[in-house]
Amino acid sequence: MQPAEGMFDTPEMAALFSAEGHLRRLLDFEGALARAEAAAGLIPPTAARAITAACQVGRYDVPALFREAAVAGTPVIPLVRLLSAEVAGDAGRFVHWGATSQDTIDSALMLQMRDGLDLIERDLRALASACAAHAERHRHTPMAGRTLLQQALPITFGLKAARWLALVVRRVRRLRALRAEALVLQFGGAAGTLASLGDQGMRVTELLAAELGLSAPDLPWHTERDRIAQIAAELGIVAGAMAKIAGDLLLLAQSEIGEVSEAALPGKGGSSALPQKRNPVDAVFAVASARLALSEVPLLLGAMAQEHERAAGAWQSEWAALPRLFCATAGAVARVRSAVAELVVHPDQMRANLERGGGLILAEALSTALAPRLGQPEAQRIVQDACARAIEEGITLRQAAGEDATVRAVLPTEALERAFEPSAYLGVSDSLIDAALVQFKDLKRVGGSAT
Amino acid sequence: MQPAEGMFDTPEMAALFSAEGHLRRLLDFEGALARAEAAAGLIPPTAARAITAACQVGRYDVPALFREAAVAGTPVIPLVRLLSAEVAGDAGRFVHWGATSQDTIDSALMLQMRDGLDLIERDLRALASACAAHAERHRHTPMAGRTLLQQALPITFGLKAARWLALVVRRVRRLRALRAEALVLQFGGAAGTLASLGDQGMRVTELLAAELGLSAPDLPWHTERDRIAQIAAELGIVAGAMAKIAGDLLLLAQSEIGEVSEAALPGKGGSSALPQKRNPVDAVFAVASARLALSEVPLLLGAMAQEHERAAGAWQSEWAALPRLFCATAGAVARVRSAVAELVVHPDQMRANLERGGGLILAEALSTALAPRLGQPEAQRIVQDACARAIEEGITLRQAAGEDATVRAVLPTEALERAFEPSAYLGVSDSLIDAALVQFKDLKRVGGSAT
Amino acid sequence: MQPAEGMFDTPEMAALFSAEGHLRRLLDFEGALARAEAAAGLIPPTAARAITAACQVGRYDVPALFREAAVAGTPVIPLVRLLSAEVAGDAGRFVHWGATSQDTIDSALMLQMRDGLDLIERDLRALASACAAHAERHRHTPMAGRTLLQQALPITFGLKAARWLALVVRRVRRLRALRAEALVLQFGGAAGTLASLGDQGMRVTELLAAELGLSAPDLPWHTERDRIAQIAAELGIVAGAMAKIAGDLLLLAQSEIGEVSEAALPGKGGSSALPQKRNPVDAVFAVASARLALSEVPLLLGAMAQEHERAAGAWQSEWAALPRLFCATAGAVARVRSAVAELVVHPDQMRANLERGGGLILAEALSTALAPRLGQPEAQRIVQDACARAIEEGITLRQAAGEDATVRAVLPTEALERAFEPSAYLGVSDSLIDAALVQFKDLKRVGGSAT
Amino acid sequence: MQPAEGMFDTPEMAALFSAEGHLRRLLDFEGALARAEAAAGLIPPTAARAITAACQVGRYDVPALFREAAVAGTPVIPLVRLLSAEVAGDAGRFVHWGATSQDTIDSALMLQMRDGLDLIERDLRALASACAAHAERHRHTPMAGRTLLQQALPITFGLKAARWLALVVRRVRRLRALRAEALVLQFGGAAGTLASLGDQGMRVTELLAAELGLSAPDLPWHTERDRIAQIAAELGIVAGAMAKIAGDLLLLAQSEIGEVSEAALPGKGGSSALPQKRNPVDAVFAVASARLALSEVPLLLGAMAQEHERAAGAWQSEWAALPRLFCATAGAVARVRSAVAELVVHPDQMRANLERGGGLILAEALSTALAPRLGQPEAQRIVQDACARAIEEGITLRQAAGEDATVRAVLPTEALERAFEPSAYLGVSDSLIDAALVQFKDLKRVGGSAT
Repeated sequence: MQPAEGMFDTPEMAALFSAEGHLRRLLDFEGALARAEAAAGLIPPTAARAITAACQVGRYDVPALFREAAVAGTPVIPLVRLLSAEVAGDAGRFVHWGATSQDTIDSALMLQMRDGLDLIERDLRALASACAAHAERHRHTPMAGRTLLQQALPITFGLKAARWLALVVRRVRRLRALRAEALVLQFGGAAGTLASLGDQGMRVTELLAAELGLSAPDLPWHTERDRIAQIAAELGIVAGAMAKIAGDLLLLAQSEIGEVSEAALPGKGGSSALPQKRNPVDAVFAVASARLALSEVPLLLGAMAQEHERAAGAWQSEWAALPRLFCATAGAVARVRSAVAELVVHPDQMRANLERGGGLILAEALSTALAPRLGQPEAQRIVQDACARAIEEGITLRQAAGEDATVRAVLPTEALERAFEPSAYLGVSDSLIDAALVQFKDLKRVGGSAT
Repeated sequence: MQPAEGMFDTPEMAALFSAEGHLRRLLDFEGALARAEAAAGLIPPTAARAITAACQVGRYDVPALFREAAVAGTPVIPLVRLLSAEVAGDAGRFVHWGATSQDTIDSALMLQMRDGLDLIERDLRALASACAAHAERHRHTPMAGRTLLQQALPITFGLKAARWLALVVRRVRRLRALRAEALVLQFGGAAGTLASLGDQGMRVTELLAAELGLSAPDLPWHTERDRIAQIAAELGIVAGAMAKIAGDLLLLAQSEIGEVSEAALPGKGGSSALPQKRNPVDAVFAVASARLALSEVPLLLGAMAQEHERAAGAWQSEWAALPRLFCATAGAVARVRSAVAELVVHPDQMRANLERGGGLILAEALSTALAPRLGQPEAQRIVQDACARAIEEGITLRQAAGEDATVRAVLPTEALERAFEPSAYLGVSDSLIDAALVQFKDLKRVGGSAT
Repeated sequence: MQPAEGMFDTPEMAALFSAEGHLRRLLDFEGALARAEAAAGLIPPTAARAITAACQVGRYDVPALFREAAVAGTPVIPLVRLLSAEVAGDAGRFVHWGATSQDTIDSALMLQMRDGLDLIERDLRALASACAAHAERHRHTPMAGRTLLQQALPITFGLKAARWLALVVRRVRRLRALRAEALVLQFGGAAGTLASLGDQGMRVTELLAAELGLSAPDLPWHTERDRIAQIAAELGIVAGAMAKIAGDLLLLAQSEIGEVSEAALPGKGGSSALPQKRNPVDAVFAVASARLALSEVPLLLGAMAQEHERAAGAWQSEWAALPRLFCATAGAVARVRSAVAELVVHPDQMRANLERGGGLILAEALSTALAPRLGQPEAQRIVQDACARAIEEGITLRQAAGEDATVRAVLPTEALERAFEPSAYLGVSDSLIDAALVQFKDLKRVGGSAT
Repeated sequence: MQPAEGMFDTPEMAALFSAEGHLRRLLDFEGALARAEAAAGLIPPTAARAITAACQVGRYDVPALFREAAVAGTPVIPLVRLLSAEVAGDAGRFVHWGATSQDTIDSALMLQMRDGLDLIERDLRALASACAAHAERHRHTPMAGRTLLQQALPITFGLKAARWLALVVRRVRRLRALRAEALVLQFGGAAGTLASLGDQGMRVTELLAAELGLSAPDLPWHTERDRIAQIAAELGIVAGAMAKIAGDLLLLAQSEIGEVSEAALPGKGGSSALPQKRNPVDAVFAVASARLALSEVPLLLGAMAQEHERAAGAWQSEWAALPRLFCATAGAVARVRSAVAELVVHPDQMRANLERGGGLILAEALSTALAPRLGQPEAQRIVQDACARAIEEGITLRQAAGEDATVRAVLPTEALERAFEPSAYLGVSDSLIDAALVQFKDLKRVGGSAT
């Protein structure tokens, strides 16, 4: 057991990519191969049945098998030996017929990744749902929009949630498209020619893909790893999206800002030294998990440079990196889902922060109100002067503006007041929230394999 | 000028992502914005015409503008000032109306990336064409298939080229799909609400997107960088594909293997010390360029964690990383295209290498020939013994096998001979080559924006 | 020109790593080689003088030379040709005698890196000086210490600056040690045996190293790139240190926190849309530059896997990555130096933020005051309850504590007051500030090549 | 259990960085803290004894503790609770006195890393020893030196091994220096002021460092992670060195080159499909392990940007990355050590490959022989022509040279013969081998903490 276990993953994903989870799919491949070859007339149907019967993970000593794998350099060598021995009668000699170890390992990883993508999509959909709820509920909750960590203009918390939502919806859409592009069978035999199957290679490929519920590839792809890289990159993008949302949560939860806080749970977020601390633990671990996920992507993209018909190192490194990537991405998504779904939002504090700057955040609104009468450059100049005076003298921008003769001449008092009302300067926020919600509804309507 | 200029890029891509290339698109945005706002009735049509007339890159001192940009922290501040001054009459006050600097910069980069993807797709198609030619021409040219850098089984050079081809075709396909997903306008104003455009934000967005030939996005995306990350990841995958092909070329061109060589050109591939050297320069620089391209991807994925409504550092780092990524990817593709298109193939040397191992590479073929009579385990055992004897005694496997009583009993001489003929043990290589060529033909038929 | 030029570097470092800066050192090598070989009696002294005379960068057309280099695959091939032609008389045939192109390029890069490390050390020392000034001046300026972005306990701004100082001092120390370990001559000839120098190889190596002011290496190191990797890693660590300091500045400068701001300069930190914005531009570009620097490190570490006696791609990729790394690191250091040296500190706002939490930040102080009488567990329990009540009822912790019967029984009023005075709960902050200042004084006393 | 367990690590390092290994050091810290505080008079000596007695890893349910840690966000919260309960009498209230969870975790990791560096240094020394043996034994074994994967000039296998040796010796030296720089105690309390220890903070720090056998740091360093980054970078460099050596082994072991092979062991290096395969498994897994190690470095360097007094995510990500980095580096070193120590070297094949090129590899030797009489340019021109003719006509360079009138005029037959004897053109190879062996002897003489 590693100390970080459970911190940066989810239990389901950890089980899926465990040694047992991998062996289960290695066996699924060997069983399916036997059935496909029986259907193609290459091996006796009785052998296929006997092999299938032996392909149950419970029959094998998982740790022993993987210890042997570490010596052999591949789990398939001990697997074939043990499986052949386990098969009843003399059908053992048909085990792994015509396949190479990479066929088995790559296809098993594809089966694991298929299930892993399901898990991630499920949690992303739950996150989208939580974002959509905030977008609706806080459609009219004004808060400061911030650029370069400075207050810039008012937005609403609903709009912020809507942009998170749109981000998540786009990633779910892409994950779905990716399934069709990237989840394919690997089958080529020792050098990709399927030579030991004579002229039956193409037919067995089709049958085997159907048995496993994977697509048949255009060609075997032992050293053309673009599909693996695509999956890796997309998980990295999902992790990056989680880092964005979690980063916003951390900034909003700062003691001095206090616009959101994570739900308090017993045993969560405390401090070993400080009794008053309520740490945003989910966001913290989402950020950590996302970083861990992202750190696997360069390895997997860099591993595309594989030699000739089978790689000497780059391929093998995928065996450690892919499980870590799926686990950490799942951890990041689960943490953000939990943080957003349970988020405690503080509209009063959002309003208080908006007003803290003495109306500086509405400088553009004031300038926009003045521009039709004064032209943009003159309006901006006047507002810039008023801002400088407000900052220098420690008064509000409203006061500084109210004391400017030109402003008074151009804007009646109520227009000046309106210029300083955040909720009157939200532009098309409402339409943008609607746009994100429509995308989310589309996504739910279409559904997907993971729904 | 930097010493590496021209080594790891292409002249076209370098020009596209130069300061002038960027400024050209910044101006394209500002002109299009003025026209869109005029069409929406927000600014006078005469102002739009005057602004459009001033949006010509030749009118500006490019180095001076970017020197000022380095102080201001954005090129848009000097740009707006200079452009406003350049606009005839008093229309200068309508320049950049309602936009924020990130709207201009992101949209300009999208326009550059659109053209950059065209260039990369064009060279990938030329590379695919070169691969297809090798696949056809060397359909029946046997060579050693190699796994873990050891001879494994015979393949053909046509099959190797067909797998490169399939890889390239998949990436072209994906690049095309990516255009629709990822190339979108950025437009949101200072905090993403388009507040200074009143209720015209959505309409101007549509008009502006149409003016620029970009898609309108679901929502503004100043700090949701998933599309940038998608483009970056896909270029990384293209670079990884180039590293795979170039790596194979380097291995095949080794002095001791000599199965391919790069075309000799005056001034290319020599050595400052060694008169006899013919270095595979294109493959070497393809590998270097691919590594440089890949090194930009983690930065761009890691830069997804952007704060609130505009990022304080991560976004700005994209300005250096994206141009480098496009340039290095283009360099890698151009080098591989040149290497493959001009490749000198040595079939005799391929045949010689196949035979060098004394038939060991056909051990599986022998075992497959024996299996129907002896069963796979017994066949494998016999072949393993023969291999061991051949290696130990320095004789060929054919001789060792021919001296084995069981082999002689089971296989007539001509069958034994056939087992040692590489071209008789190529499985479904032909069908796989056909499959790759079909994919390529489909790609050409459908065409695309870059054709 | 690239659009990002000047944004993420410094002019001095950019010049040092320009094409001209590289060519200058390539020529330095060739001249020194001739002199060393003349001293060893391998070539005539007149030839050495003639070659030295021709080794002036102003004599060459830099862009033309590097354009040719891009075709040849190395700048040394055109360099040797042009230099040989430029040398007076027939001494041209002794140019580059016995060397290989990698000897010239690696040694030139070492000379550039030596100067580049000087520049970085100089700016780090200036930064240390600025940190030390803040540490002294704000030794008694209390502010909130923050963990996980939550207020934790009081510290002083002097202590924060002292920790930045200690970090910078450690990196300067390490940079100095690195010079001795990593800055060495490259000299081995085409395969590292110096065969064409007969038995004079070791002697010429010593003489050449002395000529260039570099150490002679234990052995030639064409494909053992650990020294390059060490330099790269250390610059990455410097960049990471800059990201830490700049990140703190960005957080402290947030509108709602306002504890520091960057000095206002004309044309710096404005916004194209918002008149009131004062953006922390230096910190923003420090973060961006640091990220760009860090992105070069994995490439350079990954490039250690170089083939045999000269690499086919990995080495060449260093030519682009090393200059970028030096430039971006220099940019990050210069930006942080500028931000810290000119920093405007707001002690009142620090005090105000400390008090904003109603004394929650002194929960540990209260618990420490109670512990001697109640034991730590009981003290912590009481404080935790008081915190909960304070948060729930919106009162200060001081009030909540003052209303607790046990607290009143154990702590007299003045002791309770003292528990809520931040400056009374600073532990050994003063000694820690002293410790950092002592380290800095040591550093200055020892001086270094760059002082 | 994960499927890759045991493949990319060593059992010792895996145990050291297991959950149990971590808990053991967390407890070491808590016990030492109690003793230091008792020595400083802060807590009763009896309490320190009781706490020390309870600090035995066997008393705790490791998986349960770390499951709770995943919820709490730190292992120290459950640890303090369980340890306090385990301590006899009422001394439990003195557990973790004045410390913060990061003090415990960082110090425990330092203790683990200290032991981890010992393990790595031990294996590197064994590897150095194996390299030194080859350098001695094969001092006069000529082989082809190769640049850009092309034969360049003769070297000896002893020289190749000597350069591996020098690389390894340099890394051992650096690892030793690193111990003093980077292995330090972490101790600062909740915000780095040690406020809850009153004026005893500095004294307890000294005592605690002495108890643990770590250096006391200049200042606490909760968010100044440069030492962690230094360790990470250096392990990355070690991994890169392993990738270099393993890469050479893979290239030398190619079927067509066959200059080395890995020792055959039962169950190692076989193939699931091909009976004749003898895969270089150690080198393959060394490459894979090195890539995995390198992939952790950017995360750890990037994690230097930590917020304020404790980071929200970056620090936590170290908990997963550091163990992986130590395990993978150890795996890479162990694999290379095993491969080199047991390496089977084939001098005959080295000689055969040298001669395979028809003497082209001695083109420089020929040119060097001609230069004294003809001048370098003329000599090079003649040799270049002879090379071209040899390649074109398929004859040896010796024959082509022998048929050139100028060559015949200048070089007597025996001089021509000598020019084509590889062992006569090895320059200072012998001295370089000696230099590497001297460095290795120095290293052994000085010894080190790990010897």
